[in-house]
Amino acid sequence: MKRSNGRKEDELRQLFLGPGFVKNALGSCFVKFGDTHVVCTATLDEKVPPFLRNTGSGWITAEYGMLPCSSSERIEREAVKGKQSGRTQEIQRLIGRALRTAVDLRLLGERQIKIDCDVIQADGGTRTASITGGYVALAQAVQQLLRRRRLDCNPIVRQIAAISCGIVDGAALLDLDYAEDSNADVDANFVMDSDLNIVEIQMTAEKNPFSKASLDKLLAFAEKGIKEIATAQQSLNLIGAK
Amino acid sequence: MKRSNGRKEDELRQLFLGPGFVKNALGSCFVKFGDTHVVCTATLDEKVPPFLRNTGSGWITAEYGMLPCSSSERIEREAVKGKQSGRTQEIQRLIGRALRTAVDLRLLGERQIKIDCDVIQADGGTRTASITGGYVALAQAVQQLLRRRRLDCNPIVRQIAAISCGIVDGAALLDLDYAEDSNADVDANFVMDSDLNIVEIQMTAEKNPFSKASLDKLLAFAEKGIKEIATAQQSLNLIGAK
Amino acid sequence: MKRSNGRKEDELRQLFLGPGFVKNALGSCFVKFGDTHVVCTATLDEKVPPFLRNTGSGWITAEYGMLPCSSSERIEREAVKGKQSGRTQEIQRLIGRALRTAVDLRLLGERQIKIDCDVIQADGGTRTASITGGYVALAQAVQQLLRRRRLDCNPIVRQIAAISCGIVDGAALLDLDYAEDSNADVDANFVMDSDLNIVEIQMTAEKNPFSKASLDKLLAFAEKGIKEIATAQQSLNLIGAK
Amino acid sequence: MKRSNGRKEDELRQLFLGPGFVKNALGSCFVKFGDTHVVCTATLDEKVPPFLRNTGSGWITAEYGMLPCSSSERIEREAVKGKQSGRTQEIQRLIGRALRTAVDLRLLGERQIKIDCDVIQADGGTRTASITGGYVALAQAVQQLLRRRRLDCNPIVRQIAAISCGIVDGAALLDLDYAEDSNADVDANFVMDSDLNIVEIQMTAEKNPFSKASLDKLLAFAEKGIKEIATAQQSLNLIGAK
Amino acid sequence: MKRSNGRKEDELRQLFLGPGFVKNALGSCFVKFGDTHVVCTATLDEKVPPFLRNTGSGWITAEYGMLPCSSSERIEREAVKGKQSGRTQEIQRLIGRALRTAVDLRLLGERQIKIDCDVIQADGGTRTASITGGYVALAQAVQQLLRRRRLDCNPIVRQIAAISCGIVDGAALLDLDYAEDSNADVDANFVMDSDLNIVEIQMTAEKNPFSKASLDKLLAFAEKGIKEIATAQQSLNLIGAK
Amino acid sequence: MKRSNGRKEDELRQLFLGPGFVKNALGSCFVKFGDTHVVCTATLDEKVPPFLRNTGSGWITAEYGMLPCSSSERIEREAVKGKQSGRTQEIQRLIGRALRTAVDLRLLGERQIKIDCDVIQADGGTRTASITGGYVALAQAVQQLLRRRRLDCNPIVRQIAAISCGIVDGAALLDLDYAEDSNADVDANFVMDSDLNIVEIQMTAEKNPFSKASLDKLLAFAEKGIKEIATAQQSLNLIGAK
Repeated sequence: MKRSNGRKEDELRQLFLGPGFVKNALGSCFVKFGDTHVVCTATLDEKVPPFLRNTGSGWITAEYGMLPCSSSERIEREAVKGKQSGRTQEIQRLIGRALRTAVDLRLLGERQIKIDCDVIQADGGTRTASITGGYVALAQAVQQLLRRRRLDCNPIVRQIAAISCGIVDGAALLDLDYAEDSNADVDANFVMDSDLNIVEIQMTAEKNPFSKASLDKLLAFAEKGIKEIATAQQSLNLIGAK
Repeated sequence: MKRSNGRKEDELRQLFLGPGFVKNALGSCFVKFGDTHVVCTATLDEKVPPFLRNTGSGWITAEYGMLPCSSSERIEREAVKGKQSGRTQEIQRLIGRALRTAVDLRLLGERQIKIDCDVIQADGGTRTASITGGYVALAQAVQQLLRRRRLDCNPIVRQIAAISCGIVDGAALLDLDYAEDSNADVDANFVMDSDLNIVEIQMTAEKNPFSKASLDKLLAFAEKGIKEIATAQQSLNLIGAK
Repeated sequence: MKRSNGRKEDELRQLFLGPGFVKNALGSCFVKFGDTHVVCTATLDEKVPPFLRNTGSGWITAEYGMLPCSSSERIEREAVKGKQSGRTQEIQRLIGRALRTAVDLRLLGERQIKIDCDVIQADGGTRTASITGGYVALAQAVQQLLRRRRLDCNPIVRQIAAISCGIVDGAALLDLDYAEDSNADVDANFVMDSDLNIVEIQMTAEKNPFSKASLDKLLAFAEKGIKEIATAQQSLNLIGAK
Repeated sequence: MKRSNGRKEDELRQLFLGPGFVKNALGSCFVKFGDTHVVCTATLDEKVPPFLRNTGSGWITAEYGMLPCSSSERIEREAVKGKQSGRTQEIQRLIGRALRTAVDLRLLGERQIKIDCDVIQADGGTRTASITGGYVALAQAVQQLLRRRRLDCNPIVRQIAAISCGIVDGAALLDLDYAEDSNADVDANFVMDSDLNIVEIQMTAEKNPFSKASLDKLLAFAEKGIKEIATAQQSLNLIGAK
Repeated sequence: MKRSNGRKEDELRQLFLGPGFVKNALGSCFVKFGDTHVVCTATLDEKVPPFLRNTGSGWITAEYGMLPCSSSERIEREAVKGKQSGRTQEIQRLIGRALRTAVDLRLLGERQIKIDCDVIQADGGTRTASITGGYVALAQAVQQLLRRRRLDCNPIVRQIAAISCGIVDGAALLDLDYAEDSNADVDANFVMDSDLNIVEIQMTAEKNPFSKASLDKLLAFAEKGIKEIATAQQSLNLIGAK
Repeated sequence: MKRSNGRKEDELRQLFLGPGFVKNALGSCFVKFGDTHVVCTATLDEKVPPFLRNTGSGWITAEYGMLPCSSSERIEREAVKGKQSGRTQEIQRLIGRALRTAVDLRLLGERQIKIDCDVIQADGGTRTASITGGYVALAQAVQQLLRRRRLDCNPIVRQIAAISCGIVDGAALLDLDYAEDSNADVDANFVMDSDLNIVEIQMTAEKNPFSKASLDKLLAFAEKGIKEIATAQQSLNLIGAK
């Protein structure tokens, strides 16, 4: 299978990270992986969820949404349907879980940072783009809180990025676009830190079960991709992990 | 009251109209009035609402939403709350009503165009920006349908734009930003066509009732603003009104 | 176009204001404009919405509903559908906004008056009838609170009434019934105080845009109607505006 | 216990049945049992529920609601809460069940009559008042359908009425008002036809269990009440049971 | 009509009461009436509903549900539909009401016991089985609370059981299964204490109204059934009524 | 860390598979992994989701729920909350995805099998128990359809089972119970077929990121567990994979 734009099998799409896209948010990032465009923002909430009250510990949570026209078939607005789909909830739970590992929640103190990821245009890999851009929004928000002396020390302990891989027509591919994703035999999402330790793996056989060899191959591709994404994040000169 | 950036009382904020912002939509426009930024898209739906079935007539409808971080206080996501607020519904009903007057619904045929207006950043005047940008997305969509021969003739009969005005500290002002809007005695929204015929007036006393003289003053300001916005819309060289 | 019952173009329908219709409410009014019948009630709630807590200021809010059989086509019960329609919310927001201008909210103190407007029979103009009757229920409730010494001084600062006008078959008409409203080119609702200062204008082109001359003509008709309605309200000998 | 207005233990409150109260409904009745006031309406729906399609059989269903100010404590609007309470659903299921026994559903043909019962003022016994008034609205609707030749023959086979009884401070009482109902040891609702056959009994110990003797005593009171109510229904000269 | 398994008209189905079925609950009972199987559990909640706060009085409440496959036609999951049906709410209100009469709520203290009744398999009589098994779960929970010294004295004042009866093809029957229930002319549910005092009667004509003689006959059958069920409950050697 | 009951690190809990537990379902299985008890059922629906209509292809879908008292803290009923939680939806999407790989959907024909998994008692691993028991219910349902000649040939192409693993206090463990799961550093769920090909991996760092070595270790444990579970499934003598 020929990839569009002559991409190689282990090549990322064009990556763009635009911090500060939304002026009203504490931190924000407009992230593009090719034609997948996501607005990520970070806001502070001085309240934590009930289970953390009076524990001294903070929380990171995420919400995810797609604009109705982000997809080639218009998606019905979840505010109109009256509820978030299972897919939406699954994705926002993943984003929150991934970004919580970036932070020492006790150093954050009893406050919450909310990461909103809104997809403007979707062409595959929106959940991994959201984690990658969400990390940037989070780092920018923490930087602001340190500047404004709302935080005394940097609670970020780990730099987080994510990428999708898959097997399409028998070939392992890095960073699937929508056309590739729709034809994938195996679909995998990897979240890692910048030292390539694993934070989360989700790997699913879309048609036939797969072997351990396929798992190893995709993991190697993911490591290559994460390394490049982490470098791009670092080049923004935001606050780094302690 | 001094306006920010030294704006004059009857001066619009910097206006930007970016058609084609979202590649998956039939028509789209990224509209900015100063720091108010809205993504407007238009999609085709071959089904019409039940009351129009077998009438030969089409429909234009609109949906409106604000990203959680578009405002300086994070707004809870309506998909999470499980319903659209009264304000949201009021605004999207206004947008739909306004844009329906742009089109001869019989020439459109038994199909529906949906206009989605999603606010990325809010600084006052999001509903009038949505109408102004929604018209551009609509015109681009119609242009596409004509090119693809899905439509035989242009159903657009009128070019539509909208602007807000208000009375703040006794002074009439054109195109209020959020700070001005929050202090307004009178708040007005005007929808007009490019010949300055009136499509809709919504005018509300926020504190004290107002006189007919105030109404006349604000209407004159609105006419000036609409004229300039209509010129900007025309400069995009999209299909015009028949 | 001949109006039913030989009404003149600037003539109101038969108006009836029956205060005290519901014994359990603090204030109430059964209002009839011809065949449009609305039960308006006012209740006291010692709690204010969150944004007013500890401000010393009170609030007036309104809710609106239509009985399923109030219309000639049975309307599905909103309690069954599980949500209020956009139209319902738009109307109740209008009623609340209009009646808040009747009251000095600081004199009311940190309490809330809720106005419920339930349409028993609908024949056009239910929102303006609700404002007119809601004002009577509000005034009766305030009178009760003064009698029971729950209030020290009268917080009503303005007497409020409302009426619809429109252009049908080229002719300006006052107080449209349902048949007229369905055929209107322009549909307008005016809220004013008894001195004919304007509280709110909502004016919409249903078919073609309209001129400033039409606006002026309908405003003049509205002033005539409001004057007569205000006189009827005064004849009830409820507490007046300070 | 002294009853208000010197009522005897087996005496009904003042009963008023006003058919034709709502002009837009096919049938309607404003029913008053003392200070309990309910608007009952009947509408025709040419569709039946899915389980009856193509069976040739019709259906009677009921909906029940209370206006927010019908009670001395304002009741939150179910349209705002987004759902009908368990109590509401229980009551409307009872009303529908009771009125279905009045009709030969096969003679009605494959169509549905919806009975709406909306409580304007509540002082105990709203469900039995709804059944009593709902029967009148139903009979008037059937009379209209026969006149308009939408029905060929009268499907009403039985005249239905309902009344509440209870034991308060050891004494059996007919037709409890709210104060009595709140203090009742036993609360019972009886639906019967005009020949005093039983359609439904609901009898509940609010405090202590009761004996068969209490059941017999209340049933005798109910028979007296139903007889009087049935006579009042007959005096309206609507269509009777076949 | 021949009953399945050669049951006599006044014979119960095989009854099984299995206390302690769910290890995580304070009290539990797996109850079977023939092929009707229900899991009943009791949990303690230290909070009471708002209307009981600071009264010193406790509360018993119940919730009811059917597993989707409990019925021969799969029932849509209420969690998916987004609301409990009217039938579900009616049943759980009945269970709660019945079990509250078993307890002196003041002796319970300001705490709440929640009874959950989940139907694993349905073959008629699920609501009466729920009351019967719910009483066992309640008694076991109270026994636990006494053992753990969370309660000082036994608040159970009455032993409660329930059974359905009906008239099918002219014959009175005890403990209807689903096939019988579907053909019943009269359907009745009786809740009684172990001394055969009546707690609740719900008796409904499914087709034709019935006479007082039928009521008396079914009541006698119910007394026989309740006596046997109460004996089975007592044989479990749980805490008894004071 | 000592495991309860002296379990070894790579030892499963006591496994019980009880097919035919619910008589009304086409297929069913009561599955126990130690104190985790789940009722799994399979029903046939002759309708497929819209996207499959007229494709000749069938579908397998799953729904998941927990009884309120299945957990040591009572869980609020989702039917009462009005929606399924994100966790519930995530789990039921996983179950459906896993069981779809067991079946050739074209051989199933245009019909749907619904798998319901209801947790009676929860002690860790409910989602993997649901997949394991859901497969049994599915196989039993297919066997029934073949017997009743509703299916011509066996559409099952693969035998599916699932198990959880994790790292607790530095040690890899198979089949975590709730106490272990709550303390896990890494939590993983594996779905495989009986040939140990991988269907899905979900692996999450709960505290610190993990290495590839950990992944490999847990995968080896999972293979051991799946082998034993698959043997237990085979011993039921249901229809096997083609």
